[in-house]
Amino acid sequence: MTVLLADRYPNFSICGLPYFLSGDVPDWRSLAHRTIDELEQTGIELLLEHTAEHIDALAQIVTVKTPERSEQRLRYDTLIVATGAEAARPSVPGIDRSGVYQLHTIGDSLTLNAALTNEPEKGVIVGAGYIGLEMAEALRARGLHVTVLEQLPTVLPTVDPQFGSLVRAELERNGVDVINGATVQAIDARAGRLAVCADPDVTIEADIVLVVVGVKPDAKLGRAAGIETGTRGALKVNRRMETNLPHVFAAGDCVVTHHRLLNTDAYLPLGTTAHKQGRVAGENAVGGDRSFEGSLGTQVVKVFELAIARTGLRNDEAAAAGLEPLTIESHGFDHKAYYPGAHTIVMRLTGEQGSGRLLGAQLLGHLDAQVPKRIDITATALHHGMTVDELNNLDLSYTPPFGSPWDVIQHGAQEWARASRTLARG
Amino acid sequence: MTVLLADRYPNFSICGLPYFLSGDVPDWRSLAHRTIDELEQTGIELLLEHTAEHIDALAQIVTVKTPERSEQRLRYDTLIVATGAEAARPSVPGIDRSGVYQLHTIGDSLTLNAALTNEPEKGVIVGAGYIGLEMAEALRARGLHVTVLEQLPTVLPTVDPQFGSLVRAELERNGVDVINGATVQAIDARAGRLAVCADPDVTIEADIVLVVVGVKPDAKLGRAAGIETGTRGALKVNRRMETNLPHVFAAGDCVVTHHRLLNTDAYLPLGTTAHKQGRVAGENAVGGDRSFEGSLGTQVVKVFELAIARTGLRNDEAAAAGLEPLTIESHGFDHKAYYPGAHTIVMRLTGEQGSGRLLGAQLLGHLDAQVPKRIDITATALHHGMTVDELNNLDLSYTPPFGSPWDVIQHGAQEWARASRTLARG
Repeated sequence: MTVLLADRYPNFSICGLPYFLSGDVPDWRSLAHRTIDELEQTGIELLLEHTAEHIDALAQIVTVKTPERSEQRLRYDTLIVATGAEAARPSVPGIDRSGVYQLHTIGDSLTLNAALTNEPEKGVIVGAGYIGLEMAEALRARGLHVTVLEQLPTVLPTVDPQFGSLVRAELERNGVDVINGATVQAIDARAGRLAVCADPDVTIEADIVLVVVGVKPDAKLGRAAGIETGTRGALKVNRRMETNLPHVFAAGDCVVTHHRLLNTDAYLPLGTTAHKQGRVAGENAVGGDRSFEGSLGTQVVKVFELAIARTGLRNDEAAAAGLEPLTIESHGFDHKAYYPGAHTIVMRLTGEQGSGRLLGAQLLGHLDAQVPKRIDITATALHHGMTVDELNNLDLSYTPPFGSPWDVIQHGAQEWARASRTLARG
Repeated sequence: MTVLLADRYPNFSICGLPYFLSGDVPDWRSLAHRTIDELEQTGIELLLEHTAEHIDALAQIVTVKTPERSEQRLRYDTLIVATGAEAARPSVPGIDRSGVYQLHTIGDSLTLNAALTNEPEKGVIVGAGYIGLEMAEALRARGLHVTVLEQLPTVLPTVDPQFGSLVRAELERNGVDVINGATVQAIDARAGRLAVCADPDVTIEADIVLVVVGVKPDAKLGRAAGIETGTRGALKVNRRMETNLPHVFAAGDCVVTHHRLLNTDAYLPLGTTAHKQGRVAGENAVGGDRSFEGSLGTQVVKVFELAIARTGLRNDEAAAAGLEPLTIESHGFDHKAYYPGAHTIVMRLTGEQGSGRLLGAQLLGHLDAQVPKRIDITATALHHGMTVDELNNLDLSYTPPFGSPWDVIQHGAQEWARASRTLARG
């Protein structure tokens, strides 16, 4: 088994890059899920710095550019295309200036880390998604003044604006300046510094600018070989992760993802999904028979002392899919309030009116409040198509230091059911 | 709606008693889930210190002893019997001596707390179940020397001995003496102190002795009224929480509990179960139609810095039920090891050979490792009859500070599947 790798960093946890840059992870090498030695011991042949340039699906040959810039032709029985995503870059003047960074690869982070060792004073982060906010925290930890610029009206637009406001407050509490509703127009150079110019009229001086405005599938190789593409230009695959080309599978951030609730293709580039799809593709490529059971878009992010998580559909997403959703916000303690250290968790639960079917949940609370694994309980319920009311039947654990006889999720389910009944009565 | 209460403490969290006694909860009144005022505002008539003495199911009348020791007859349309459990007490000489305590009610804990204000030096706890271990921690917090005496070979016998050993080490690390395999024979009084005599030959001096060796259903009232009883002498109910008597429901620690996996009656006196059964009984008593969906015996306990949790069946329980279980122990980090503060979680996953059906799980880890909500993910999977392998399909959340792309549960599922395949190959 041969793995072709364009860079020199196989099986690295790129979700960990902000924690290397913050200083939490002193050595970037520890970001490897498995080391090169460990990988090679499993019998995998790793070809580092080999770029796949062309797939001839008829002849079953991949043409590769070697580190020496020569061409090599590799025959395959089965091929898995896992070219991932690339960082989106707004096409504004100055985006290629020195001092403007992106963060998608180990290489990107080494470059940015080198810049940080020069002790810049002021950083501007363009984009208030997951990586933007994680990097706001990282740059604060490195002692920078930080401004986050986001063109949408709230930060963390993957969750409801109500949560966005709470996250913005947490950023500000930790000394991060946040500007919402501002679109970058240009990045100028002025007196040895950078100046980020945005519309409506705002200019922010900076020593470094980090542009993290999302990703898009890196589908060029597959598309050129004749693999059909779908939503957002990602490679089309079925649930066995087969493309339309014989003997060619694809997986990860370069492919469309089956959405378990919507029963449609979506583009959901998440590490968890990529791992699952890779496992399915790998097993099937060697004669197995495994099916990707779909994504619920479950995700979580840490922003300073907050954990923010979601699974399934938000109200607007469900409505866009033609459903009749109802979203109810509730508040509860992570454990019995009488036991020291109780934290409030805010829950936004979305269910379908009429059927009562659970559609999704968003949770926000202190990083010690077991928010991530609580969203996972909800994701497991969603996986099985439970109704909101049925959440109350789940036999969840309880002891005062860790929970309540009705978990905050079940408490939220009861509030939702009450609101839904009130609404139904008119 | 009238609630009859033998004592003066309605709707109290008796699971919180150890945390009142430890000093974590300064005022016992804050252990109330809801105050008397809050309860009365919902329209409930509370009759405190009224003991139900007799049920005439034909006439639909409950005879009550009032606080003034007079008799009162209350007519009912529907009745819910929720007499709970009582503390088990070994019948050994000296069990009724002054200085020997039990812990089941608010009254018990006020009595014990009064004794603790006299600053006793040495406490012996008889019984190493949940309450025994929570109280070991509580009495250490109050400055006592503590010895725990358990007749079984390991502490916390509700989990596997492998976990019992780890829990024992945690107790000892915190200065608790543990004696396993010792059965109390007598409690003597010697020179103003107590002496606990156990077999094999051991005598431990103590200022206070706490006997916490489990509970049994308090079914006397219901049984005398003609309610059939089942396992452990608990009142028999169907899944609507109806007894065999017309208009009489029963719920909580006094009734048998439907075990969702075994599809039999069990005796599982847990707060979570009692809350669910109470809700089902209450709704049905006023004309609703709700069914108790069964217990998986999900539970968790904090012992100093450890959280220990279980759901479903252990290997021996599954084997006793005629299944062919396989239990595999695995170890994983609660979050990516490169991020600071990672803790090892030990998982013991039990599945059925052949079918691969998930049967149960036990988790042990640091109290910050999200062990409680991880057991709940597994409980939710069990609720839906998933196979071990299907756990890998769950779309769980991930960010390096809180988890891994494959959660420790999924990692354990993969280890189990590997072991199961190896075993099947012979």
